[in-house]
Amino acid sequence: MPPSSDLSSTVCVVTGGLGFIGANLTAELIRRGATVRIIDALVAGHGGDRRNVEGLDVEIVEAEIGDRIVADAVAGADIIFNLAGQVSHLASMRDPLHDLHVNTVTHASFLEILRRVNPTVRVVHTSTRQVYGRPVRSPVDELHPTNPMDVNGVSKLAGEHLHLVYHTAYGLATTSLRLTNVYGPRQRLSSDELGFLPVFIRKALLGDEILIFGDGGQRRDCVYVGDVVEALLAATAPEGIGRVFNVGNVVDQSLAEIAAAIIDATGSTGGLRLVPWPDDHQRIDIGSFHTDGTTIAEVLGWKATTTLETGLRATATFYRGHPWYLSST
Amino acid sequence: MPPSSDLSSTVCVVTGGLGFIGANLTAELIRRGATVRIIDALVAGHGGDRRNVEGLDVEIVEAEIGDRIVADAVAGADIIFNLAGQVSHLASMRDPLHDLHVNTVTHASFLEILRRVNPTVRVVHTSTRQVYGRPVRSPVDELHPTNPMDVNGVSKLAGEHLHLVYHTAYGLATTSLRLTNVYGPRQRLSSDELGFLPVFIRKALLGDEILIFGDGGQRRDCVYVGDVVEALLAATAPEGIGRVFNVGNVVDQSLAEIAAAIIDATGSTGGLRLVPWPDDHQRIDIGSFHTDGTTIAEVLGWKATTTLETGLRATATFYRGHPWYLSST
Repeated sequence: MPPSSDLSSTVCVVTGGLGFIGANLTAELIRRGATVRIIDALVAGHGGDRRNVEGLDVEIVEAEIGDRIVADAVAGADIIFNLAGQVSHLASMRDPLHDLHVNTVTHASFLEILRRVNPTVRVVHTSTRQVYGRPVRSPVDELHPTNPMDVNGVSKLAGEHLHLVYHTAYGLATTSLRLTNVYGPRQRLSSDELGFLPVFIRKALLGDEILIFGDGGQRRDCVYVGDVVEALLAATAPEGIGRVFNVGNVVDQSLAEIAAAIIDATGSTGGLRLVPWPDDHQRIDIGSFHTDGTTIAEVLGWKATTTLETGLRATATFYRGHPWYLSST
Repeated sequence: MPPSSDLSSTVCVVTGGLGFIGANLTAELIRRGATVRIIDALVAGHGGDRRNVEGLDVEIVEAEIGDRIVADAVAGADIIFNLAGQVSHLASMRDPLHDLHVNTVTHASFLEILRRVNPTVRVVHTSTRQVYGRPVRSPVDELHPTNPMDVNGVSKLAGEHLHLVYHTAYGLATTSLRLTNVYGPRQRLSSDELGFLPVFIRKALLGDEILIFGDGGQRRDCVYVGDVVEALLAATAPEGIGRVFNVGNVVDQSLAEIAAAIIDATGSTGGLRLVPWPDDHQRIDIGSFHTDGTTIAEVLGWKATTTLETGLRATATFYRGHPWYLSST
């Protein structure tokens, strides 16, 4: 499957397609001519919203990916982008069983469905850099030990492993991408639990003060969602089959620098302030994290190309045109 | 908690205590004076059997470890040996959801119960060398990458990770042991799906021919269950908290050598024969595996001391005195 260019004869399924990354991917797939089916359970708090794909010509199946009824939706598909899941670290600690259900158990059911009804489909799954836990060396490449610090890291890693087991055991053409912090249009901004980027962006757009836990020196590499969409498309190349790749940015920044860039891009007058770590955040915090993206660059030819400044300006422009993101729950 | 000696003022809970390793551990704990409660769901095919603890003074709670009713059983316990789970690689591929349920999901429920009703308890969990998958270097130490080859490896690794998350996030005093191939008294022999050792031992005791897949050159390090019981007790030392240890044998053998030793210990006249790999075994096979046990020797002072010959002689003697193991289903 060509990673770019024309997809006009291609049927794609995007699970979690009503969420942040899924909706951006869906828009790009349609722009390239693909037929797109979305499977999304619209679980409260996960970030899915039908308005994310407003105006796009897509078929939407409202279901968990493990439901039997998804068999019809995946039959005949050429590519499946399996993005369904929950991403909140805090929520995973409050309700471990729900997190394991949506990130691990339903994926086992989904893979069983795929191997039965569509064993030759190409599958790209999204995992998270959270599987590494607290880095023991930096930047973090794919051979870094996996020591998740929260249930979400455990469940996503198990989901990733299941995709690889179904490759080695059954020849299913799977790839998994470990995403770092992603930002951009269509992200749910109203929750305080989907990562620091949407919180910072919401505060800045509302002119509120951004609160940074600790001394603001903790570092992250942020990726614009448009770049992540390109990575997902690049991952469909045959070279990616049976492999795991980091998706991050060669440029990293401190949280204070990221907050300052967000304030700059939005013109916020709210400023920022350092505050002590809340307990529930601190006990699952991983410290600084910097992705080593060498493997995906070498094997799939992908690297993030959008600077933080450019991405944040596009992000601010998008949300000014779609103010419901600031108030939606 | 002293790893050896007197346990007469100690309350121990053994989950999976009616199974192979759990029953041997229970017998030793009672010998040392401990009060023992067993939690076991007696799931068909898992190896649990009330006859494994016949004559032992134990309280038995027949329940899944995630059931609410186990709260009473774990309240007030000093040490929990969390051995419950399923170990069959083939069964995990036939029924991935069941495997994820018993090795991952119920452990999340169990850990939630523990942190609520007994947050200071000492917990030793049993994992498996299967979490490593196919070795990329040998011997395999704890820093070897974890790339499980079957659903059982995925689910056990997730269960192990959950135990460590509950240590870092909540201070629960957890340890996990990655066990290699274990043999000895009280193992379920009648199944063909609980590893090659019980199959070889059953065939030899019945005078049947032992079938070895492939050329017999594949290597394993086998551990006598009495040594594993000592490792479980050693793992209760404070130095083990929040850590994972391999439990294997410094001496390894080829499958052909292991089969020959079993034939020798049992006096079997059935012999052995090399046969081609069945598909369902081959696709999840990990090749040769040799455990590096340096870490547990250095940190906890444990190493396997029973030779294969000695262990197999004791094993053969036990089963001759307990013939029901050869026919029980």
